[in-house]
Amino acid sequence: MKRPTIRDIAHAAGVSPGAVSFALNDQPGVSEATRARVRKVADEIGWQPSAAARALSNNRAQAVGLVITRPTDTISNEGFYLRFIAGVEHVLTRQHQSLLLQMVQTEEEERLAHARWWSGKHVDGVILTDPREQDDRPAALAHLGLPCTVVGVSTACSGLAGVGSVVTDDAKAMRRVVEHLHETGRHRVAHVAGLSGLVHVETRRRAFRDVAAEEGLDVVASWTTDFTEDAGRHATAEVLRDAGEEHVDAIVFDNELLALGGLVAVHDAGLRVPEDVALVSFEDSPVCRVVSPPLTALYRDPADLGRMAAEALLATIETGVAQHLTAPAPSIVPRGSTSG
Amino acid sequence: MKRPTIRDIAHAAGVSPGAVSFALNDQPGVSEATRARVRKVADEIGWQPSAAARALSNNRAQAVGLVITRPTDTISNEGFYLRFIAGVEHVLTRQHQSLLLQMVQTEEEERLAHARWWSGKHVDGVILTDPREQDDRPAALAHLGLPCTVVGVSTACSGLAGVGSVVTDDAKAMRRVVEHLHETGRHRVAHVAGLSGLVHVETRRRAFRDVAAEEGLDVVASWTTDFTEDAGRHATAEVLRDAGEEHVDAIVFDNELLALGGLVAVHDAGLRVPEDVALVSFEDSPVCRVVSPPLTALYRDPADLGRMAAEALLATIETGVAQHLTAPAPSIVPRGSTSG
Repeated sequence: MKRPTIRDIAHAAGVSPGAVSFALNDQPGVSEATRARVRKVADEIGWQPSAAARALSNNRAQAVGLVITRPTDTISNEGFYLRFIAGVEHVLTRQHQSLLLQMVQTEEEERLAHARWWSGKHVDGVILTDPREQDDRPAALAHLGLPCTVVGVSTACSGLAGVGSVVTDDAKAMRRVVEHLHETGRHRVAHVAGLSGLVHVETRRRAFRDVAAEEGLDVVASWTTDFTEDAGRHATAEVLRDAGEEHVDAIVFDNELLALGGLVAVHDAGLRVPEDVALVSFEDSPVCRVVSPPLTALYRDPADLGRMAAEALLATIETGVAQHLTAPAPSIVPRGSTSG
Repeated sequence: MKRPTIRDIAHAAGVSPGAVSFALNDQPGVSEATRARVRKVADEIGWQPSAAARALSNNRAQAVGLVITRPTDTISNEGFYLRFIAGVEHVLTRQHQSLLLQMVQTEEEERLAHARWWSGKHVDGVILTDPREQDDRPAALAHLGLPCTVVGVSTACSGLAGVGSVVTDDAKAMRRVVEHLHETGRHRVAHVAGLSGLVHVETRRRAFRDVAAEEGLDVVASWTTDFTEDAGRHATAEVLRDAGEEHVDAIVFDNELLALGGLVAVHDAGLRVPEDVALVSFEDSPVCRVVSPPLTALYRDPADLGRMAAEALLATIETGVAQHLTAPAPSIVPRGSTSG
């Protein structure tokens, strides 16, 4: 079956293609009776304007873009992104918008994807994740005039035209974790963090150090990694070795994969969880519930962040005014890995 | 910065907008000298034709579509899809193609997404996953003239115009699993499968039953589920209860979440893995390596399937001839859950 065309409608309605075009585009030049007949025929044969034609006429792509940039392939095993995307889709589908997705390894590739989308009018705006300490993306997008929503931080984008945000409070979340460790009697703590240079990672590292000091805990180590299970295992082994006689008695991990690797390393070292070392994951997932012992974790639904990001971006595109939303703070779910 | 337009080029080159259009679209009406000057100016100011204009002119959207349809929200925790998408992206990015992604709950929503993409010329083709026993999608897409690649089976699409495939041999994979159970001395086996009605699920169920019979094993139970950890836990509890005195001594799970749920249920029942019950996951993931005991699993990289699907689809779009590829058979990775 071929896509119905203006010509098909003209044939069926017994008018010229030009008349069909006038009728369907609300332009003068045809009678009201003809306009009504043309519309009826168009409905009957299932005609719809092509996205390309519509994009040319209203200058909208009816799509938003998301580039996921991680230096390794292991992103795929994290629960966060697919749930985040599911949340984005939830909003876009209802608004008849599409998601353009690209996965790349480097920041340079991410910039190229944005430039290509912009110059080709592929998207009306983009969602930025993983904001960095030195992040030139929001300013670059503002310069292009391509609206965006930054997920995770507000400082990088304050005051830039068309740059909205969904703000997460990673410092407050880390405070809950460290207070929990203090309450359960821990004294010597370590943090196995994600990629160095990401704002949320650095925010957590600072909060970990600061809150530990307030609570009278010793910070034994703070590692950065690439978010993978192997990195979690390696970093944890190093932390345990470096601590030597003065055992570290609690370790916080930035995601569930790091925590899984850490759990293996603790077992490998012949130590017990939670008797010798307590473990906490900064992301919850089904995995955290089924390992032995189950892992205490911070719970938030990444789909909620995705929904908020899509809503903020569509509103920014629609109104031309940057929209800022604040994500609810995650809650801590205590399990066996921090209390026998 | 505004996007450079035909008018900007005309101004900079000192010619009319019409002449610029003729020059850039290789049409007669301008001298070769003017054509060269216009092109040089266009390059200098970074002009590119908009995707919308290009799509209208070459009738290609330069994008392929993927709808993920699962009746629950829990899809997001499976490792399979994000790795699969990463593989698809790997091919698309190099060919300057985009991926349009949609996540829906029902088959009806999937059909609507396909129809919308087709009528609006949003995509040049689509990837179909999770082929069903009664699957009207390939025929419907062939009828529309929208090329597609079906991942997972060949029978549903043999001979349909523009319908290619990436074939996986789930029967052979299940044979390896059951033979492994036989070799490790198991006698009474059960299968906790995924969604009923999916071709790969039904293929596995038949193969499980047939190979078990060949090997002289008793099939105690065959459950279908929704692929979630909770379903795995519930189904396993039922299997263990129904088996009663005559314990089931091996259970095969269709993915790693089901296996995780199953592991919890076995522990809850006061049984030991692998002494009382051996467990096997049909998908491998980091999770399988870090639970206790680690889970024996079938290993295949979903990214390979994604790459093959994108390659087959782009070739089908390009040549107009349906392309069929065969995925390599997965290998079994024996771990502690099947042998002490």
